[in-house]
Amino acid sequence: MDKDAFYMGLALDLAKKAQGNTSPNPMVGAVLVKCGRVIGQGCHQRAGLAHAEIVAFKRCRVSPAGATLYVNLEPCAHFGRTPPCVDLVIRRGIKRVVIATLDPNPLTAGKSVKKMRAAGIKVSVGALAAEAVRLNEIFFHNMKKNMPYVSAKWAQSLDGKLVSCKGRSKWITGKSARRLAKSLRDKYDAVLVGVNTVIKDDPQLNGLRKIPFKVVLDPAGRLPRRSELARKYADRLIVVKGKRGRIDLKQALKRLYRMGITSVFVEGGAKTLGGFFDAGLVDKVYCFIAPKILGSQSALSAIGGKGFTSPNNCPVLKDLEIMPIGLDLLLTGYPQA
Amino acid sequence: MDKDAFYMGLALDLAKKAQGNTSPNPMVGAVLVKCGRVIGQGCHQRAGLAHAEIVAFKRCRVSPAGATLYVNLEPCAHFGRTPPCVDLVIRRGIKRVVIATLDPNPLTAGKSVKKMRAAGIKVSVGALAAEAVRLNEIFFHNMKKNMPYVSAKWAQSLDGKLVSCKGRSKWITGKSARRLAKSLRDKYDAVLVGVNTVIKDDPQLNGLRKIPFKVVLDPAGRLPRRSELARKYADRLIVVKGKRGRIDLKQALKRLYRMGITSVFVEGGAKTLGGFFDAGLVDKVYCFIAPKILGSQSALSAIGGKGFTSPNNCPVLKDLEIMPIGLDLLLTGYPQA
Repeated sequence: MDKDAFYMGLALDLAKKAQGNTSPNPMVGAVLVKCGRVIGQGCHQRAGLAHAEIVAFKRCRVSPAGATLYVNLEPCAHFGRTPPCVDLVIRRGIKRVVIATLDPNPLTAGKSVKKMRAAGIKVSVGALAAEAVRLNEIFFHNMKKNMPYVSAKWAQSLDGKLVSCKGRSKWITGKSARRLAKSLRDKYDAVLVGVNTVIKDDPQLNGLRKIPFKVVLDPAGRLPRRSELARKYADRLIVVKGKRGRIDLKQALKRLYRMGITSVFVEGGAKTLGGFFDAGLVDKVYCFIAPKILGSQSALSAIGGKGFTSPNNCPVLKDLEIMPIGLDLLLTGYPQA
Repeated sequence: MDKDAFYMGLALDLAKKAQGNTSPNPMVGAVLVKCGRVIGQGCHQRAGLAHAEIVAFKRCRVSPAGATLYVNLEPCAHFGRTPPCVDLVIRRGIKRVVIATLDPNPLTAGKSVKKMRAAGIKVSVGALAAEAVRLNEIFFHNMKKNMPYVSAKWAQSLDGKLVSCKGRSKWITGKSARRLAKSLRDKYDAVLVGVNTVIKDDPQLNGLRKIPFKVVLDPAGRLPRRSELARKYADRLIVVKGKRGRIDLKQALKRLYRMGITSVFVEGGAKTLGGFFDAGLVDKVYCFIAPKILGSQSALSAIGGKGFTSPNNCPVLKDLEIMPIGLDLLLTGYPQA
């Protein structure tokens, strides 16, 4: 295996450890290698805490002078809550820097690379670039679009039903799939549902390790005051109201982004999911499929909304991945128009 | 690898060559091995032609005396269109016989094994038994249930739609999936659709290599006389009429079985597929999934019918397999109540 890819893999693994905690920052891992040995490593744990490079330097027990630094994102060149990492990299006498991708922010992309090269450091860009972009898909999307990243998640029978013809949905998928679905919430700043889901299921919408923000689409002001969300999580609850009973989803997302919400996990129901697809606002899909047949045209299908007029103009999932979970399947993919 | 499994694998590969042609007989392959060399092999090509063992003996260039015979089904003990194979096996001086499974017909199962053992032949049963049963799933089902084997096939979007909200279904899946779907017809005696499919699509329902029987469920006598099926395939067409506008699917299948149809490939539409699921008559599922979102509650779902009241009492697919085909997926499985 390619040496750069190997150490970049380590850096990505380190980065991943803070998944769900770094928002609005990306996940970054850094590995310092000297004479074929890892002499320091670290990751960015949370916004406001040290960047990955700084942590790696701190943990170094020998001098990093002459070492190679592997980091999955271009070191920062600007003063934010912490001073620019690029200066430290230069000061510590690093000989070579391997970066997976440039900073996605076009205003700063390449600046640090230039600065390091000017200081005589050898810089390589591109090791495990695709993996690095995927890992920080939320951050890259934020930088490019100035919008929250939107993932749609649902659990359906093989024939696309959320509930049976008698309205029963407990349980379509098995325990492992439900647990995994819950853990996915840990990756997102906010979980979003329509008000009907609150009225019907009265959910708490927590992750396994995290209490995300809870966003409820409530176009007609029907959110029950005695619901779990309203009673227990008033401080984490964001109610999106409508104008004349309607919600402009794109505007709502923009507002959420201005509030600091970088990613939204849309969990349903059918109408809400359909609305996001109709508006072309779904960036990623998590579709849990139970190998069951519920049947009947009157059973609710997973994706409502207006729908698409033809198989030739509807969203197609790219980079499809399929994972067996217990007896169920998880399909993930990225809808493209 | 286990020697018996290896040669039984060869026998199964030989058997498979005649897939779709042996009905109502099973697919059988036979391999003769002597001193570590294959000295003869053959398969059953079609009902009325020689059994696999006979073909293997005929193709032997050296004496089969002392050889081991590998065959995926217990040699026959009865006079049918051909004399009993078991007598030939004994007469030719075979030393050992390896069988994947006994004859599924309870009236004859084990008879040949007994006879061969009485003649001093060593007999082993069970090598690759599961594979052998799967290969002849139609035949085993026929013997056990005296009913045709029923496979349901459909192509849907990820969200379970057969057509868009505007009624468009061309094309949900890609070329490769459609070609594979067509080739599946080659495995079955008959292809079955509801009359609405004939009215709407006017299909020919042929396989790639075979013109199967075409069965149309036509409860109210609406089959268009000018349809392709009625005009071109009158000799292969079986129209199932209703009583007071209704069809008892189980009775219809029994009638088809008495006509010599051992397997039926049910292709839809939604109502027909739903009817077979409702009645618990689906033995195998082929579900093609395009990674597309069609959306809308008004778009037709793949499985109509009455449906099932709860995720806990609906059919669950066992032995699920997933195969990527172009950009699409094929899920196969065996529904269990």
